[in-house]
Amino acid sequence: MRYVHFNHRGRAVLGVRTADGVKVLGEETLESLLERGVNLVTYGANALGPIVDIGENDYLPLMCNPGKILCLGLNYADHVKESDYAQPDYPTLFARLNSSLTAHNKPLIRPKISNALDYEGEMAVVLKSGGRHIPKDKALDHVAGYALFNDGSVREYQFKSPQWTVGKNFDDTGAFGPDLVTADELPAGGKGLLLETRVNGKIVQCVNTKDMIFDVATLISTLSEALTLEAGDIIVSGTPAGVGFGMTPKVYLKPGDVVEVSIEGIGKLVNPVMDEA
Amino acid sequence: MRYVHFNHRGRAVLGVRTADGVKVLGEETLESLLERGVNLVTYGANALGPIVDIGENDYLPLMCNPGKILCLGLNYADHVKESDYAQPDYPTLFARLNSSLTAHNKPLIRPKISNALDYEGEMAVVLKSGGRHIPKDKALDHVAGYALFNDGSVREYQFKSPQWTVGKNFDDTGAFGPDLVTADELPAGGKGLLLETRVNGKIVQCVNTKDMIFDVATLISTLSEALTLEAGDIIVSGTPAGVGFGMTPKVYLKPGDVVEVSIEGIGKLVNPVMDEA
Repeated sequence: MRYVHFNHRGRAVLGVRTADGVKVLGEETLESLLERGVNLVTYGANALGPIVDIGENDYLPLMCNPGKILCLGLNYADHVKESDYAQPDYPTLFARLNSSLTAHNKPLIRPKISNALDYEGEMAVVLKSGGRHIPKDKALDHVAGYALFNDGSVREYQFKSPQWTVGKNFDDTGAFGPDLVTADELPAGGKGLLLETRVNGKIVQCVNTKDMIFDVATLISTLSEALTLEAGDIIVSGTPAGVGFGMTPKVYLKPGDVVEVSIEGIGKLVNPVMDEA
Repeated sequence: MRYVHFNHRGRAVLGVRTADGVKVLGEETLESLLERGVNLVTYGANALGPIVDIGENDYLPLMCNPGKILCLGLNYADHVKESDYAQPDYPTLFARLNSSLTAHNKPLIRPKISNALDYEGEMAVVLKSGGRHIPKDKALDHVAGYALFNDGSVREYQFKSPQWTVGKNFDDTGAFGPDLVTADELPAGGKGLLLETRVNGKIVQCVNTKDMIFDVATLISTLSEALTLEAGDIIVSGTPAGVGFGMTPKVYLKPGDVVEVSIEGIGKLVNPVMDEA
């Protein structure tokens, strides 16, 4: 089942893709459905609703107010190599705040105070249930589905202090969507899928998700040793090599560029780049 | 006006302190009042409600679901000196997640997987309005009030990777409360107040809040260059020297210890330490 969140006649609604178009489910959000423990596969199949088309500019972030957005850094060896970090033997976690989210087809905004906006194509994992001390062999039972994420990074702010958080949280830099693909439609743990990022049509990142250093089950299990995971939490699983910051010379996004993140079986997330007004 | 959040006859309620006791305002949270733009000074004064006593164990985190908890590191020179970092010329930001919050008189939990739980006494700033690109000379107009925060840190997890986030987000490590003191009752920017942390009655941290490297107005203005601040967001303004991690040898919290964070005019936040069950 593929869920989408979009504007329909002035209302933010959730829908599922069908062979005939998108079936509108109503205004209840994914956050709310997941918190209520609704089975997204049967709910999307059984719910009644009008079939509509989604306008190109009508997409919203898949979820606008998730409980947590847990982002991983340094989770592909080739990206660690292009960074100035040694490979840690523990997941590198930072948080995104909801105010940084944007949607499919909406612009990534290059802020006034920086020329160093960069892309990071990633696979996001949405949880349908949480817990603490989740064993690794049960971890994937907690996954609702997978989605695309562009973890847009304002590089000089990322490195102005020892913590990346501010550079990862500029407004309109975290693109999330368009589809949540329920876990039953993908390999366990979202493993073995081709992830590609394109800038203006040219492939800049290309990896297989099986090459994550800490796979999805390990991330869920390890993070839950520290904190209580909750239904609706999002784990953004890290980016591979090929970011602009890793190039020589560095190449950053500029207005008019178009970034596309795609993962086999999940879809394609497209974002043009614009300067802050 | 001093707001408190507590359990009263099985309901989570907000109250304000009066000369006769705590006046119960009802179940609407600070998050909700602030989002609605309610003036906390007049609302607390004019609202009607029964006067009650708060039981020692009835306190809740001042806010359980704030939009953002923006924490600052390296914001007092003496603490930077005891850390292994050079002083950055930009605020060092990391995020706390709501799942890590705990309340006045509730235990800070030393997790199973670590013996390195440490305290950090800090002043928290709660915003009553937000915005982007807030000028420094208007920044304090956005402050609803001030509160105490113990930014409890699990040190070896803080340093297992280049990002501190996981070590700052263990369950029941971020103590927040008991009182939100509205800004009218304190000096502008919460500046010039004595902040002290005690462990088992012994003073371990002692600083004047005027010694922050980036003061409250600067933090609001600078962070708003990157991201949209919103009513109800919390800025936790950093800890001074004297943490257990900075001692030789390092001294960490153990079950039975009691940590008290106090700031002149704001009050005292008390937390015993317990092992995870």
